[in-house]
Amino acid sequence: MSETKTAHPLTVHVPLNGGRGYDILIGRGLLGQTGARAAALGARAAAIVTDENVAALYADGARASLEAAGLRTCLVVVPPGEASKSYAGYAQVCDGLLAARIERGDLVVALGGGVIGDLAGFAAATLRRGVRFVQAPTTLLAQVDSSVGGKTGINSGHGKNLIGAFHQPRLVLADTASLDTLSEREMRAGYAEVAKYGLINDAAFFAWCEANWAGIFSGGPERDEAVAICCRAKAGVVVRDEFEHGERALLNLGHTFAHALERLTNYDSARLVHGEAVAIGLALAFRFSARLGLCPGQEAGRVANHLALVGLPTRLQAVPGGSGDADALVEAMGQDKKVRDGALTFILARGIGASFIAPGIDRAEVLAFLKAELGAG
Amino acid sequence: MSETKTAHPLTVHVPLNGGRGYDILIGRGLLGQTGARAAALGARAAAIVTDENVAALYADGARASLEAAGLRTCLVVVPPGEASKSYAGYAQVCDGLLAARIERGDLVVALGGGVIGDLAGFAAATLRRGVRFVQAPTTLLAQVDSSVGGKTGINSGHGKNLIGAFHQPRLVLADTASLDTLSEREMRAGYAEVAKYGLINDAAFFAWCEANWAGIFSGGPERDEAVAICCRAKAGVVVRDEFEHGERALLNLGHTFAHALERLTNYDSARLVHGEAVAIGLALAFRFSARLGLCPGQEAGRVANHLALVGLPTRLQAVPGGSGDADALVEAMGQDKKVRDGALTFILARGIGASFIAPGIDRAEVLAFLKAELGAG
Ligand SMILES: NC(=O)c1ccc[n+]([C@@H]2O[C@H](COP(=O)([O-])OP(=O)(O)OC[C@H]3O[C@@H](n4cnc5c(N)ncnc54)[C@H](O)[C@@H]3O)[C@@H](O)[C@H]2O)c1
Ligand SMILES: NC(=O)c1ccc[n+]([C@@H]2O[C@H](COP(=O)([O-])OP(=O)(O)OC[C@H]3O[C@@H](n4cnc5c(N)ncnc54)[C@H](O)[C@@H]3O)[C@@H](O)[C@H]2O)c1
Repeated sequence: MSETKTAHPLTVHVPLNGGRGYDILIGRGLLGQTGARAAALGARAAAIVTDENVAALYADGARASLEAAGLRTCLVVVPPGEASKSYAGYAQVCDGLLAARIERGDLVVALGGGVIGDLAGFAAATLRRGVRFVQAPTTLLAQVDSSVGGKTGINSGHGKNLIGAFHQPRLVLADTASLDTLSEREMRAGYAEVAKYGLINDAAFFAWCEANWAGIFSGGPERDEAVAICCRAKAGVVVRDEFEHGERALLNLGHTFAHALERLTNYDSARLVHGEAVAIGLALAFRFSARLGLCPGQEAGRVANHLALVGLPTRLQAVPGGSGDADALVEAMGQDKKVRDGALTFILARGIGASFIAPGIDRAEVLAFLKAELGAG
Repeated sequence: MSETKTAHPLTVHVPLNGGRGYDILIGRGLLGQTGARAAALGARAAAIVTDENVAALYADGARASLEAAGLRTCLVVVPPGEASKSYAGYAQVCDGLLAARIERGDLVVALGGGVIGDLAGFAAATLRRGVRFVQAPTTLLAQVDSSVGGKTGINSGHGKNLIGAFHQPRLVLADTASLDTLSEREMRAGYAEVAKYGLINDAAFFAWCEANWAGIFSGGPERDEAVAICCRAKAGVVVRDEFEHGERALLNLGHTFAHALERLTNYDSARLVHGEAVAIGLALAFRFSARLGLCPGQEAGRVANHLALVGLPTRLQAVPGGSGDADALVEAMGQDKKVRDGALTFILARGIGASFIAPGIDRAEVLAFLKAELGAG
């Protein structure tokens, strides 16, 4: 385990137009620089939004850093878990920021996993019609995925992320040492998104993952490297297609299935966390592609094998309490926002690193596949 | 009262960049064209969001028009009044739109006053991270002000419009015949915003208003003309300064006072409606300008006289139940989002049609003025 100080963090620049470009900084110990980095953005006050778990571990440090840099600070803490990404959680965060008199020139610091990034980011997007925010992701999933790209939002009873805004952060501070306290289960869940980047369009990175995944988990230099590779990949897609009119949809590989699974398990993280749903979704996307004759069966097998090796689920049957039957799954997909005019859009693959957008997939085709997966077809 | 059919409505174009330009159509009977206009935008489904009062009068007609044009429709109805511009109202509208499976290519039609425009517009801005919407304003205030310019939002317990988004409509359909059913009180309230445009930068229009106000109230051709003049003025400002970095703040003439008054009366429209608060705010802004030696006293008098002539309040004492004392008013202004780094920004005037942005106004100066107004200084 490397404990080097991050004098020179890895940097990925996201070159968005209109003065909205920003840096993603990646390295061990970066949270200690929160204050200096916020001051460099010209902020005089910063609100840290976080959850109870992360607050106990990192809020004092981040707050001390901000105060040492001369910023007025405040702390808004929500309960941990997906349930906070709700209308009620949103109102709580907005009112907390208003009570602290956060103004347009101030900063909102989203300190936590993807739940906090999405929730605090949406509050920042809409508070006073938009205040600046910094992502300080503390889960692997948030560092490689949710903190980059400006998608923010909350869930409705009708589905995940159905309410939200595009709002780019001014800076992403990915302190990879913060992952040392993350549970194995959450590390694995984030790892599903890491593997996803290889599966989308980078076969060489997937092969690198097969060889180096243990270093990511143990906190070796492979961790920083993997986070940087993933951020670079995501930033590239985001810059080319910020508002998801095309290519950006590729990032949803595995996610149409995943969102349906999360919906049917009521976003209950005791049963399934997002990354586990994604792992199952990735395996399903490849097997569905194989079934449609698009992708060799052994490629689908290689995907599932690697995910299983790191301890991730790859089958619907692995969902504790059951995934729901095929009809319920297809119905749950119908509420996904990737639906246009009633037709289902999937991300499918011709092989590892060769995914593509497949609009207009027949519901009956999906239903038959899921029935077969569940052993009922 | 002219009952001509609106074959050729007055049109004001709002030339925003990035393909976001849109038309404001003004004329009697335009709601009957809702369906044809929505179909011309390529929509296949439209959700009408409205309040109970407006639903009873106009929802059937608008819905029939949409259905005649072949669109799938649904109706989301909230209680009338400012209280619906809340977190709960927002959740209700979003969930209503989701239950009706409104997708990205569909339309949200905001049918009602400014409350509905702001609420439905904010829901449209954030539903699935943005769906298209049409403003169909049915109050004078909404036709001349809130439906144009893309500001949407809700209130928090901390103040008005503190949560929201910029989201431009695709079309504004201002059916001036719909104002025939508006109460006298609401007509007068909207008229405060009409007069405001003259006071900001168009002395000739203010003089025209002094001569022609009765025709606006009675539904003569002066009504359409006044709505068009106001929309043109607002559109010009919005195009030059969409995100309120400068000039757009002029539209807030009278509003720093007005928002404080509304806050202190708990947004209770039985006591004070927005336009009445604006009327008092306009009169205060001119008297404050006169007190600071910026504006001749007789100009301030002319403003108050005209507003009083149409039946609008112009003094703090006119607020039923009292406005709160000077300290409470200044404190309530402090939560306004036009506050930067604690300094108060006002819109002041050198005369009718000669307003300007005055940042950094001393709180003590405001306090002394309000004490004098309340007869305690
Ligand atoms: N905006 C996007 O582009 C995007 C992309 C992917 C996922 N997401 C969203 O991200 C969310 C999932 O994010 P997540 O997996 O990070 O979940 P999460 O934020 O709930 O974090 C998982 C758990 O880990 C805890 N935790 C966080 N950091 C910790 C640390 N350093 N040490 C110990 N415990 C820690 C949290 O308290 C929580 O209990 C979902 O809501 C998903 O929709 C968003
Ligand atoms: N977005 C902006 O740029 C902007 C600008 C100014 C004001 N506003 C907002 O607008 C709101 C005030 O709007 P408003 O004054 O239109 O209030 P409103 O929407 O509450 O309407 C006033 C009343 O008139 C009723 N009504 C509406 N149309 C009617 C009709 N044709 N016939 C009979 N009754 C009718 C409504 O049911 C309501 O009871 C405030 O919330 C204010 O913050 C927004």
